[in-house]
Amino acid sequence: MTDSTTPVYRDPNTPVDTRVSDLLARMTLREKVGQLNQRMYGWDAYRRTPEGYELTDALRAETDRFAGLGALYGLFRADAWSGVDHTNGPGAQDSAALAELVQRHVIESSRLGIPTLFVEEVPHGHMALDGTVLPVNLAVGATWDPDLYERAAAHAAAELRARGGHMALVSALDIARDPRWGRTEECFGEDPHLAARLTEALVRGMQGGDTTAGFAPDKAPVVLKHFAGQGATVGGRNSAESELGLRELHEIHLPAARAGVRAGAAALMSAYNEVDGLPCSGNRALLTQLLREDWGFEGLVMADGLAVDRLARITGDKGSAGALALNAGVDLSLWDEGFTHLEEAVERGLVSEESLDTAVARVLSLKFRLGLFERPYSTGEFPSPQQGRELSTALARAAITLLHDDGNVLPIPATVSRIAVIGPQSATTAHQLGDYTAPQANGVSVLEGLRQLAPPGTDIRHAPGCALTGDDLSGIPEAVAAAAASDLAVLVLGGSSARTPDTDFDANGAARNAVSEITCGEGVDLAGLSLGRAQHALLDAVTATGTPTAVVLIQGRPHVVPERAGALLTAWYPGPWGGEAIAEVLLGHAEPTGRLPVSVPRSVAQLPVYYNHKDTEYGGYVDASAESRYSFGHGLSYTSFAYGPPRIEGNVIEVDVTNTGKRRGRSVVQVYIRRLLTPVWPRTLELHAFQGVELAPGERRSVEIPFGTDQLEQVGAVEVRVAESARAALAVEPVVVRLKG
Amino acid sequence: MTDSTTPVYRDPNTPVDTRVSDLLARMTLREKVGQLNQRMYGWDAYRRTPEGYELTDALRAETDRFAGLGALYGLFRADAWSGVDHTNGPGAQDSAALAELVQRHVIESSRLGIPTLFVEEVPHGHMALDGTVLPVNLAVGATWDPDLYERAAAHAAAELRARGGHMALVSALDIARDPRWGRTEECFGEDPHLAARLTEALVRGMQGGDTTAGFAPDKAPVVLKHFAGQGATVGGRNSAESELGLRELHEIHLPAARAGVRAGAAALMSAYNEVDGLPCSGNRALLTQLLREDWGFEGLVMADGLAVDRLARITGDKGSAGALALNAGVDLSLWDEGFTHLEEAVERGLVSEESLDTAVARVLSLKFRLGLFERPYSTGEFPSPQQGRELSTALARAAITLLHDDGNVLPIPATVSRIAVIGPQSATTAHQLGDYTAPQANGVSVLEGLRQLAPPGTDIRHAPGCALTGDDLSGIPEAVAAAAASDLAVLVLGGSSARTPDTDFDANGAARNAVSEITCGEGVDLAGLSLGRAQHALLDAVTATGTPTAVVLIQGRPHVVPERAGALLTAWYPGPWGGEAIAEVLLGHAEPTGRLPVSVPRSVAQLPVYYNHKDTEYGGYVDASAESRYSFGHGLSYTSFAYGPPRIEGNVIEVDVTNTGKRRGRSVVQVYIRRLLTPVWPRTLELHAFQGVELAPGERRSVEIPFGTDQLEQVGAVEVRVAESARAALAVEPVVVRLKG
Repeated sequence: MTDSTTPVYRDPNTPVDTRVSDLLARMTLREKVGQLNQRMYGWDAYRRTPEGYELTDALRAETDRFAGLGALYGLFRADAWSGVDHTNGPGAQDSAALAELVQRHVIESSRLGIPTLFVEEVPHGHMALDGTVLPVNLAVGATWDPDLYERAAAHAAAELRARGGHMALVSALDIARDPRWGRTEECFGEDPHLAARLTEALVRGMQGGDTTAGFAPDKAPVVLKHFAGQGATVGGRNSAESELGLRELHEIHLPAARAGVRAGAAALMSAYNEVDGLPCSGNRALLTQLLREDWGFEGLVMADGLAVDRLARITGDKGSAGALALNAGVDLSLWDEGFTHLEEAVERGLVSEESLDTAVARVLSLKFRLGLFERPYSTGEFPSPQQGRELSTALARAAITLLHDDGNVLPIPATVSRIAVIGPQSATTAHQLGDYTAPQANGVSVLEGLRQLAPPGTDIRHAPGCALTGDDLSGIPEAVAAAAASDLAVLVLGGSSARTPDTDFDANGAARNAVSEITCGEGVDLAGLSLGRAQHALLDAVTATGTPTAVVLIQGRPHVVPERAGALLTAWYPGPWGGEAIAEVLLGHAEPTGRLPVSVPRSVAQLPVYYNHKDTEYGGYVDASAESRYSFGHGLSYTSFAYGPPRIEGNVIEVDVTNTGKRRGRSVVQVYIRRLLTPVWPRTLELHAFQGVELAPGERRSVEIPFGTDQLEQVGAVEVRVAESARAALAVEPVVVRLKG
Repeated sequence: MTDSTTPVYRDPNTPVDTRVSDLLARMTLREKVGQLNQRMYGWDAYRRTPEGYELTDALRAETDRFAGLGALYGLFRADAWSGVDHTNGPGAQDSAALAELVQRHVIESSRLGIPTLFVEEVPHGHMALDGTVLPVNLAVGATWDPDLYERAAAHAAAELRARGGHMALVSALDIARDPRWGRTEECFGEDPHLAARLTEALVRGMQGGDTTAGFAPDKAPVVLKHFAGQGATVGGRNSAESELGLRELHEIHLPAARAGVRAGAAALMSAYNEVDGLPCSGNRALLTQLLREDWGFEGLVMADGLAVDRLARITGDKGSAGALALNAGVDLSLWDEGFTHLEEAVERGLVSEESLDTAVARVLSLKFRLGLFERPYSTGEFPSPQQGRELSTALARAAITLLHDDGNVLPIPATVSRIAVIGPQSATTAHQLGDYTAPQANGVSVLEGLRQLAPPGTDIRHAPGCALTGDDLSGIPEAVAAAAASDLAVLVLGGSSARTPDTDFDANGAARNAVSEITCGEGVDLAGLSLGRAQHALLDAVTATGTPTAVVLIQGRPHVVPERAGALLTAWYPGPWGGEAIAEVLLGHAEPTGRLPVSVPRSVAQLPVYYNHKDTEYGGYVDASAESRYSFGHGLSYTSFAYGPPRIEGNVIEVDVTNTGKRRGRSVVQVYIRRLLTPVWPRTLELHAFQGVELAPGERRSVEIPFGTDQLEQVGAVEVRVAESARAALAVEPVVVRLKG
């Protein structure tokens, strides 16, 4: 197929592996090392001028250094840390042109014409100007709806590729075990099964089907973050130590990664934290023995930002840190100096050229599969922003969770004609967004949502009451007056991950300290889980008026909030249009369908409270309960559901679900197991499967859920318990299934 | 040596192993199984009558069942759970006679005349009527004085053997990592090195030197509790799950056990908690592969109470639970049904007779080495109670730790003529005792100590102020009046592990819930670490009088106590005569020489706060510090010390210590290391060695401390930092020692 003038690696009809080998054989050591480096911040590569984009000397120096460029991080990143906003950065309209300008320069700088990989943050939509922002992962977890998430992920990938971007960095693997951790918002929740199902949906949505031969033009290879165990760091302290044992790692922290690998994820990011004494980026047992040898993963491993250089703490210098990381199984580094010394490392015998080639081959393979040698520039269409908004709002709506409604406050009855909308977050949208979000022009606050959707003539008063943080209580009297003069109060409380230009950042872009109102996100760990003095005072004052009150929590982690109000909703960070979704649910235009992806603690003193602890007969603390306030899986509806006894037929669990109330609604059928006759000490319960079911009032349906046994290899028997939450599952009659003789 | 009428096993001149083999060969399967069982509560074996002790039918049934008796637990145990007190149980005078009565019956019930082992709780002195009570382990940890502890341990062993008891159950191996855990008081502290040194002292003190051939008549084989990792249970929850990784286990939780095994400990008790998915009593990796194969341990493994039966949760029934435990490496069970089915287990092939024989041999070996076949009854003298009291008081005195004295309140100046002694614990001694204590007739409270030792004519007023728990604030005005009318207030606050007859107990004797004033001990985990509302109100009210106040904490765990008072002392549970030791230190008759064996947290929200965390650059929570309030190793003196720079000469660290103050005092020179060039992620600091030094005012001494390198095998270099606490060590100039290349 190739003639003498076309090198084999340039022939698109040749299998990828052959192209990789051919190209590798032509490369110098320096060129190879260049492929493994991803040193620059993308926003340092360009400058916007009135005439358009131009390249910087910094980019030229980098492409000169290694005669090419392996990967470029964050070309489109826009946020307070990068300093990129609409005045100086690329929007939806001109991103593709910028990408082409950079790519053309890289290809021209490379003797063999090797294109670069544009690697982008896509934590909840692409973190770029005009990118569609989705609710954070914790909200996605609350939807218990992998199909919906898959569609949203597909949209995000299409946006990324249309701009000319390639790889998507997405948090998916971290499991929320300690809500003090600021990155709790980036987790799908505390449960490995829920996270695994959503990780699969993410990979399917972004990458499409089999990508061995290549990616479709609107599909993006995913880098799943973080591998592994980052949610287990001690004290909820960001990227600090873990005490993880192997079984805990395998049972809780690895299933999402395993599912992602099985679904074909193109890449994983090795985490900052250590596992059993070695930081993941230097952990060969994890990155090579487990991931590649046991699991057969053939994709790429990228290190987290500066994680390779951190290894110098134990190796003595960054060069040997780079060698340690490469030998452990890291293929591509991020911002580190360590990987720039790999040429010397090979010469000094610290790294074999064969190991280096293996890593380079993984980078090149991705470039071939993305078609970058044939189509180095974007050819896609930017997908409809309206579709993005609809998907984002649908996720937000599906995530809203009604925790309690003792006062029968919700949905807001038609008789209510005066509503007070109170709270520091009630009229803003910045606080609805998760960490890692580009500057936003759009959005709907709760106040705006209610104003748009409430019946005409409704009297809606607004009073912020207080700021999100701090001790200023001076606005509370106005809020109390508004509540007292209304039939119902909607009190919007919570946290914020909104970075502002005065935020102080660490070298890796994590917020260092909160000079503004940041109470969540990377680097923002919170010991007390409190909303702070002002918000608590506002809650007390508003509920003391006696006006029926619905508290809406907009938060990135479960805060500890006293149960003062008649009704309590949590929306997590619902994204820009979250206020609209919240208003719909408050007014009963939509049903509350979310279910908790994390257990909500009563206080920080009782941590941890995740439901899937080991099955011990622990009686609780003498001064406090050891039980969560709200259980994993919990979420009320405006209607009610009754479950029949589960039936096991072959490999299927069947259960009859009836809507026993007066409104349409969605129940999430949750199948929990409890292991019996097992070689290892089991957990009290494990989520084994789940399925949402929508029912009209009075409707009954038989729900069939596959009963997978692959996680139960050596187990002799299990109890199967079907219920609407983990706590409820403890109370229902189980069906015992014998699995072996 | 033996003639035809004397079986080999009866010949004391034959080596123990030969005697064991000979005896084993003569035993039936049932007799063997009997040796592995320790089912009865000792107090059910006898009844005290006006004529003396008589045996119960329960004992006869038990000796009939297995034609003998392997071991008997707690024949002398006296406490609320057993219901034994001075009205119905054995004291120092009649214990030996009771033991002889039981032993004679056992020997007569055994076809081969095999005596039983009397196994006793000796957590801080023998838990028996008239037994000398020592301060709890946490106080022992605070002394940093292994030699003193060794003498106290020797005294306890002599008491035990004089009564006719044999084996001593002693907590030593649990490491205090989460102060919420009620058994924190049973730990030597949070540090593996400190615990290892004290465990060695315990073994030396109780067992004497080499015991291969036998134990001296005043020496007792020790069962070190608990193996392993019990201090790592999640959330400080008693005997619940752990998430321990192998390295964390080895670095933190195993060194004390390793040191105890090296020192020749006769036995270990397998812990309740699981390690990497298996409860210790079913964990072959731990009990056999690590303990016996890697470490070469040849002693006995006893399971914790009912820990074997708990395995039925995973095996399905108690019989198979017994088989699992025996196969894992448990030799002797405690109270379980599981081990009674071992005969069937052998017949069903679940357990090989060879494995069974190995376990039986370990039990028999101990009996031979104790000389029980030749001298089955006590021949020892009960050691002087006065010596016991002196050792107990010396430990209490050495443990008292001055945490701060900003107000220059202590020692109480000669000008003070009016002292108010306030606090719920100020006039009682029950609260000075740890969990697992027999009823006490003796003791000195803080009030009594001050009354005895203060200068004649001192006006000492007493007001309890409040109860230890509860919300009753009615006594506070009286306390405030006493403080206001005095020159100085001594405010005694804290916790209590005092069990009373109305305590509700679990099947294994752990307190189930606190109907009385229990706030610590086994089963009494405390989420909030608070002293409770009343004590906090009392502290606020007394300090608000402006009278200089010294707070004395008598506690079994570090509580979180606001820093209101000028001076703060902690005594942990100092034992019956603790009040005297405290008074000595308050009045300056003795120096405060204790150093913290655990870091003291600022709040429960920042847990964990142990000093030896991994060396990450963690910046702290945004709403709170991640640093402890008082660091491990911290403790002030009434004088001050200056340290010269450390010098490393060969394998010795030399440091000049000068008493720069005006009083005699004791500094504890603490040598910390920080690993450099190491294959594993290191901790910020590790305690490597320590040595107390007593100096007169102005005196300088050069202290020489061996620098051991056996823990540093693969390490290339370390920083050595010498200081008076872990926190201070971070601030001093280190000496770098190259270990390799």
